Amino acid sequence: MAKNIYSRRLAGVRALMKKKRTDALIVPSADPHLGEYVPDHWRVIRWLTGFSGSSATVVITGSFAGLWTDSRYFIQAEEQLKDSGFELVKLRVPHTPEHIEWLQAKIKKGGTVAVDGRLISAGNMRLLEDALLPAGVKLDLKVDLITPLWTERPPMPNDKAFALPVKFSGESGAAKINRVREKMAMMKADYQLLTAADDVMWLLNIRGKDLRYSPLLLSFAVVSSDQVLFFADEDKIPSSLKAELDKEGIVLLPYDTVSSVISHLEEGSSLLLSPSTTSALLCKAVPKKVKIIEEVSIPTRLKAIKNKTEIKNLKEVMVRDGVALTKFFHWLEKNIGRETITELSASSRLEAFRQEQKDFTGPSFATIAAYNEHAALPHYVPDEGTDARLGKSGIFLLDSGGQYFGGTTDITRTVALGKPDRRMKSDFTLALKGTIDLAMVRFPYGTRGYQIEVLARKALWDNGLNYGHGTGHGVGSFLNVHEGPQTIGSAASGDMKTFLEPGMLISDEPAVYRQGEYGFRTENLFFCIDDRETDHGRFLKFDTVTLCFIDRELVEVSLLDDRELKWLNDYHETVFSVLGDFLEPDLRKWLRDKTRPIKPNK
Amino acid sequence: MAKNIYSRRLAGVRALMKKKRTDALIVPSADPHLGEYVPDHWRVIRWLTGFSGSSATVVITGSFAGLWTDSRYFIQAEEQLKDSGFELVKLRVPHTPEHIEWLQAKIKKGGTVAVDGRLISAGNMRLLEDALLPAGVKLDLKVDLITPLWTERPPMPNDKAFALPVKFSGESGAAKINRVREKMAMMKADYQLLTAADDVMWLLNIRGKDLRYSPLLLSFAVVSSDQVLFFADEDKIPSSLKAELDKEGIVLLPYDTVSSVISHLEEGSSLLLSPSTTSALLCKAVPKKVKIIEEVSIPTRLKAIKNKTEIKNLKEVMVRDGVALTKFFHWLEKNIGRETITELSASSRLEAFRQEQKDFTGPSFATIAAYNEHAALPHYVPDEGTDARLGKSGIFLLDSGGQYFGGTTDITRTVALGKPDRRMKSDFTLALKGTIDLAMVRFPYGTRGYQIEVLARKALWDNGLNYGHGTGHGVGSFLNVHEGPQTIGSAASGDMKTFLEPGMLISDEPAVYRQGEYGFRTENLFFCIDDRETDHGRFLKFDTVTLCFIDRELVEVSLLDDRELKWLNDYHETVFSVLGDFLEPDLRKWLRDKTRPIKPNK
Repeated sequence: MAKNIYSRRLAGVRALMKKKRTDALIVPSADPHLGEYVPDHWRVIRWLTGFSGSSATVVITGSFAGLWTDSRYFIQAEEQLKDSGFELVKLRVPHTPEHIEWLQAKIKKGGTVAVDGRLISAGNMRLLEDALLPAGVKLDLKVDLITPLWTERPPMPNDKAFALPVKFSGESGAAKINRVREKMAMMKADYQLLTAADDVMWLLNIRGKDLRYSPLLLSFAVVSSDQVLFFADEDKIPSSLKAELDKEGIVLLPYDTVSSVISHLEEGSSLLLSPSTTSALLCKAVPKKVKIIEEVSIPTRLKAIKNKTEIKNLKEVMVRDGVALTKFFHWLEKNIGRETITELSASSRLEAFRQEQKDFTGPSFATIAAYNEHAALPHYVPDEGTDARLGKSGIFLLDSGGQYFGGTTDITRTVALGKPDRRMKSDFTLALKGTIDLAMVRFPYGTRGYQIEVLARKALWDNGLNYGHGTGHGVGSFLNVHEGPQTIGSAASGDMKTFLEPGMLISDEPAVYRQGEYGFRTENLFFCIDDRETDHGRFLKFDTVTLCFIDRELVEVSLLDDRELKWLNDYHETVFSVLGDFLEPDLRKWLRDKTRPIKPNK
Repeated sequence: MAKNIYSRRLAGVRALMKKKRTDALIVPSADPHLGEYVPDHWRVIRWLTGFSGSSATVVITGSFAGLWTDSRYFIQAEEQLKDSGFELVKLRVPHTPEHIEWLQAKIKKGGTVAVDGRLISAGNMRLLEDALLPAGVKLDLKVDLITPLWTERPPMPNDKAFALPVKFSGESGAAKINRVREKMAMMKADYQLLTAADDVMWLLNIRGKDLRYSPLLLSFAVVSSDQVLFFADEDKIPSSLKAELDKEGIVLLPYDTVSSVISHLEEGSSLLLSPSTTSALLCKAVPKKVKIIEEVSIPTRLKAIKNKTEIKNLKEVMVRDGVALTKFFHWLEKNIGRETITELSASSRLEAFRQEQKDFTGPSFATIAAYNEHAALPHYVPDEGTDARLGKSGIFLLDSGGQYFGGTTDITRTVALGKPDRRMKSDFTLALKGTIDLAMVRFPYGTRGYQIEVLARKALWDNGLNYGHGTGHGVGSFLNVHEGPQTIGSAASGDMKTFLEPGMLISDEPAVYRQGEYGFRTENLFFCIDDRETDHGRFLKFDTVTLCFIDRELVEVSLLDDRELKWLNDYHETVFSVLGDFLEPDLRKWLRDKTRPIKPNK
């Protein structure tokens, strides 16, 4: 079989490895900020192997080239890696560095393993060192074998950043910096290094256009008790923003100088950094006599708790997002069977409806538009190769979100395109019970997400069903759609110490998947809010803020108890009464029907 | 005010401290096995301060003497420490070494802190070292300032140990040793040090009489691929047991030689030990070139999963325990108001009913017999000072357990002695819903206890109530009534990695407490068992094995849903049908009435 373009690239890398006496090269799917999304400039694995999934690790030796990725990408990777010279290695546990075990077994004493130290976290570097150094294997962090070969590499994006006004952020940068400094003093940190771009955006009330789905300017910051250093590409800072930064005493420095600044911190000082978002190279730049405090960053903890302005704004955004979704589902119902609608064309149409809304800047992640068996794949994203045409029967799952100046949305609805059968209705309703039961919980202050997650699963478990992903993630405020530190999941993921706090915005997305057939997921966002004080302490609850009808045709009412049914009917009443005012009469009438009360089945 | 005996002892300790140039002395409430119960010989804190609670830490300096304990003992400690020279320091978080912070703040550079290194775990020693060594404070682990002063110290118990026949253990010692060795090989451990006496008992199928509530012989063991060394007081090993040990190749060595044996392990070998049950002194005896593997011990993990014989035996024990409890509650109902019954006399009476049962050896913990406001204290144990007389109205909570050759029991029932009011019935029933809802859960294999705990709390949380302790603990098989590694609690306690596995025996004890008024707790034990296999994997459930009626008078039936009411009626039917055969006709009739079905309130 003729060698394809990727196998030629692999040969090129191997030739360079030989020259540099490198026995194994690790290529991560990351940029120097180690976030979820990366610009095309950093999509090295796609260029090198043809694999287009968002998460993978490549390892190349003289005789082997493998790509480690998790189960959601197994089928896609098999296809895309065909004839590339790379073989798929299936991760047993997602997002774990299982390639390290492989290296430990294969690379002999005296060998050298290379990785671009900007693209691997300090935490993962430690695992690599622990595995390889005792076996006498050397690590080279300063090698870049890609740049010389990737001649037509996309440049870094150069769209301008912009200031986010206080009417959206709800708090001035100066006030945020003060709060961060107070916490730094409590933690005895003289400096804090911010490497996650969303931390920097939040702190400085800036947004950028470097990524497709998150409004981020890729940048670093260093905060001390009297200075804020901001490392960014000066060309992307418009002069008005530059003037504002100057006024606030924020020092703009070239993006590339962060490492050098870190390497000159004075002896005896202390530096707070997060080992999961700080690159190995930056971490190694810290002078030996500077004390490193490893912790989740202070902005990460602070921005998880939305302020009053952010909460008010998001509630307004939810109205607009709900109107767009209502228009979309109305359009879908009216046109299915009349014109050709595919997963991709439906996604575009939805984006167009969102585009009509005020302050919409783009989708918050790649839309999961999934018909029938595609809906059984929790992270399916259609592409030209898989794009399915929607028929007059079956199941259509739509997981999408929008970025608005006032906030970030993330919603999943599943609708039946024809008459659903008994098992479909039962499956849908059991997962919906989870969405509702979690939304209704009232819990004492001090509760962590993993303590209440079972409420989202219990109805499924009672029926021998389950789903293989977490139940809830934090959501940013016109920032990343996935934001920590809070999660509602089993403890394996997420920060065990984080309490659910009033002001946190979290998703609620139980699901059920029938491989090869269909999948159901109903996802809302809710804010954690105060409930009441009793003799037994302070209690919290959730306030669901997503506004879009849930398909009544899929509800098997005999499976809902009285409280669940009341929740659903009340929710539908809210959806109608809030969205109705923004809809044309015919659409309003249509939504009235979609949200009419469901009668108990007795 | 005249100095009391404890302040004289304190003065004696201080004089010795001065002589030894010790700035601070830490006195833990532990013996060298670091278990929950200790023999009188090791109740140093009671001798020194007068405080009789089970858990505390004393710190003495020249100018201060404090006793750190948790909230369950605050009132008792205030009273018992009066005029002792010791002051109560209230722990914010139970079972945490908060005295270390105090020492860190108070002891100056160059100072010396002493603690008997046999009585502090390697884990806690590390915390102490991390806090004090960088500040230039020295630690002395080899000091014993108590023995010279405690002239009438009770000797170590000298009752003989005995072999537990395979008809009770269900597996020979040889087979257990083989299984432990297999796991050691997987963990690459050449040696394993067993310091928890119940681990040693389980492994060798031995029981002892060193402790009041647990059938343990205080002993250590070291397991290697070809040897088992057993460190115990030879005088307590009867010759028949000695012969059996010899036959199995188990080498009996003097109790005190464990440290010396450990210190002679060969260079390059590896030793598995548990840092929470291994003393600092034993840990420090390990030669530098021996690799220490810190993990929960293998016997702890293996014995948590009961074998078929143990399960069958415990179910038989539950019948006997249930008969004793039925007789007790019948006696209580018939005699309350006719004779003087107090918390202590009721406890004795209950023990007498258990004594009538086959193979009963004693209570498995100090009986919590608590009337009215005493029942609001989760860990109340009556003594002569607090003993309350039971009246014809009010609430009586009884938390007790028995040790039988066939297993260990732990049960709580709360009964109304007169007509309960509305709030009592509501409180009782909301906590009971927790007991039932947890007992009914069905969950996938791989679930950990903290994931399902909310089911025991949800009904209380919905009503602004809660309880301040965990929900479930593991229970030994004729061993400790509290046994790890599994728990059903919030994650803060317990081993995060432990799955719930078929064969585990666990308590289910939600509760509600009204300070100064009363408390309710219904506690059953259940086994984790297999439920079914579905497309979505292997599912488990619980099988409740405790057999004793639940007071119908306290049940507010309108608060139970159909499934909960069915569970309760089914449970009562089982209790009657199983226990009925073992009761005299009048008692049988009485139990029939106590277990008659409750009709739905519609």
